[in-house]
Amino acid sequence: MTDERRQEAAARVALSLLTEPGDADMGALVATYGASQTMEIIRSGTAPAEMPTRTWKAAIVRWAPRLSVLDGHDQRERARRANARLVIPGDEEWPDALAELGVHAPLLLWVRGEPALLSSEQSVALVGARAATGYGEHVASEFADALAGRGASVVSGGAYGIDGAAHRAALGAGGHTVAIMAGGVDRPYPAGHAHLLAQIARTGAVVSELPLGVTPSRWRFLSRNRVIAALSDVTVVVEAGWRSGSLNTAGHAASLGRPLGAVPGPITSPASMGCHRLLREFDAVCVTTPEEVRELAGWEDPVETRERGADGDAGSATNRLIDALSVRAVRDIDTIARRTGQARDEVQAAIGLLLLDGTVIAADGGYLLATVPQGRDATARDHS
Amino acid sequence: MTDERRQEAAARVALSLLTEPGDADMGALVATYGASQTMEIIRSGTAPAEMPTRTWKAAIVRWAPRLSVLDGHDQRERARRANARLVIPGDEEWPDALAELGVHAPLLLWVRGEPALLSSEQSVALVGARAATGYGEHVASEFADALAGRGASVVSGGAYGIDGAAHRAALGAGGHTVAIMAGGVDRPYPAGHAHLLAQIARTGAVVSELPLGVTPSRWRFLSRNRVIAALSDVTVVVEAGWRSGSLNTAGHAASLGRPLGAVPGPITSPASMGCHRLLREFDAVCVTTPEEVRELAGWEDPVETRERGADGDAGSATNRLIDALSVRAVRDIDTIARRTGQARDEVQAAIGLLLLDGTVIAADGGYLLATVPQGRDATARDHS
Repeated sequence: MTDERRQEAAARVALSLLTEPGDADMGALVATYGASQTMEIIRSGTAPAEMPTRTWKAAIVRWAPRLSVLDGHDQRERARRANARLVIPGDEEWPDALAELGVHAPLLLWVRGEPALLSSEQSVALVGARAATGYGEHVASEFADALAGRGASVVSGGAYGIDGAAHRAALGAGGHTVAIMAGGVDRPYPAGHAHLLAQIARTGAVVSELPLGVTPSRWRFLSRNRVIAALSDVTVVVEAGWRSGSLNTAGHAASLGRPLGAVPGPITSPASMGCHRLLREFDAVCVTTPEEVRELAGWEDPVETRERGADGDAGSATNRLIDALSVRAVRDIDTIARRTGQARDEVQAAIGLLLLDGTVIAADGGYLLATVPQGRDATARDHS
Repeated sequence: MTDERRQEAAARVALSLLTEPGDADMGALVATYGASQTMEIIRSGTAPAEMPTRTWKAAIVRWAPRLSVLDGHDQRERARRANARLVIPGDEEWPDALAELGVHAPLLLWVRGEPALLSSEQSVALVGARAATGYGEHVASEFADALAGRGASVVSGGAYGIDGAAHRAALGAGGHTVAIMAGGVDRPYPAGHAHLLAQIARTGAVVSELPLGVTPSRWRFLSRNRVIAALSDVTVVVEAGWRSGSLNTAGHAASLGRPLGAVPGPITSPASMGCHRLLREFDAVCVTTPEEVRELAGWEDPVETRERGADGDAGSATNRLIDALSVRAVRDIDTIARRTGQARDEVQAAIGLLLLDGTVIAADGGYLLATVPQGRDATARDHS
């Protein structure tokens, strides 16, 4: 590394301590003067005579009082302890896709894990509510499993609910996954995901533009979302409440001109309201299978819909459930859960739906497969 | 009624016995020569010298052998017994909207009930699969209840599943509902809906372009769907399998330039696949509340989405369920079903979902309301 690059890197680390992520004034100053000179301008408190805008001058005045935070700052030492690498524009591993954020682009990225994953040939953001339902987590898992299994990098926010399900399934598929944090990469958040994040860092990447040591804040969650969107070819919202932060990520994807997908759900489920809102108000594309996500991303030709069976691929979990049932032997929820490898609650919800369409009948504290699966069979032939 | 009108009516009845619904050749002939002269042309087997197209001549040759079905035909007598009225173009009760079907417009309509309802100021088609789930029937009922309750006429096909739920809820709301049949109005189909159809005829209308006495066929179901679409300001598909006939109704609505809505559902439910297909392939609008249907129809201003709560209106059934639960007293499914007035299976499915999001906990063969309803509450605050 040349001295100049080293100086540039040190200046970006310092600047990242002075401002919050995505600050447009900072982005514009760095784009104009470079990070080192911007740092000098702030330190000296003297704007170059030719500096054109008042806003920049105001920003410099705003940042100057914060200079003291730089005294004895230990980002390099913290990074060494967290086994995190610094990546800045100009580095081979710096993802070109971030340039589309313009003056809102991150100044730098701290990466625990493999920085090359930030420039994966195929990347998909699977995001959604922390307050997810079993349905949402099931869908996130199925999608992440199928997409990561075919080589796409699964990007998400490391949170509980949809994010966690997506990361885990990508890991389980032996695929790549990237977690974008709203705090320092050495501050696992949520704490309950410390182990999951460590797993992600081992084969994927845990990434943040925030200085090491800092904790997430509402603003940092929101600005983090623009990085998720910018690093992904396509963003899919799996489940989201009416005011979920995932809608913010979706908004970033849309404003970057990236394809945006939303997974529908029951209109009676508050956890799907945000997705329906995206379909209604933001022209999101309704996606119901991993293949449709790949199609939306432009990774493959449109799904040949006419060749799909009545159940398509989406029925796979349901089919597994049906396989675990018998037309003769009554089986209870626990037995079925063991046979399908699904959670008890998940089975309970799914069985409820199969009871409704007549595929399954209740008997003696357990369930039987109906001999003529009325509902499911009739669907394909329905001509009313 | 003038002699001319009487003759025109008799000719249309005769022609309806010779052809299947929506025959474009018949439509074009009647548009050109009038029904009476068209009937004479077919009877005589001699096309006027100036008749321009070969296809018309071929059609006449095709229909001539069927003339024997007119011998002793008793449509008027059957209509008297079924208490059905004949409505033809030119009659005050003839719905102008059918003109948009062009040469595919019905020759006539037989109506049991109130023909004026065919020209309701507001009409909505609520259609869907016969193989509906409890979810679909619940949504159809809620929508029909709300829309009929505010004065819209609910149009559907009288079938089991979604259609039946929509008709019943409209009747229950004291509103108007119209059933369009694929066979004679004196042949209730399905037979299990004879009582329901009689109820509809009492305050609404049971309608068909088919001669009295005939039974439905695959073709008659499909051509019937164009009448449903044409008589409705907006068509909403509530639930539909991958190849459901409801998609055909949707196609007619779209080709007539009428707004088309689809209700989303779980992607794991085969009964919602047709709706998702409409959202993906046919630009249907995602509708999740009756208000959104009214907005789509152009009957009212766009729903002020920002003012809706996190749960919106769609949560009403869930809220009813939650009201039926206690944080202290364990209640079993039967008790909850009795308290909510919902079907046992419906409650079972809904409880499954509430278990998943932590609103409800299982205890001692029954259920308790969780003291801190984690999932539902957190949705609104979610900022991840």
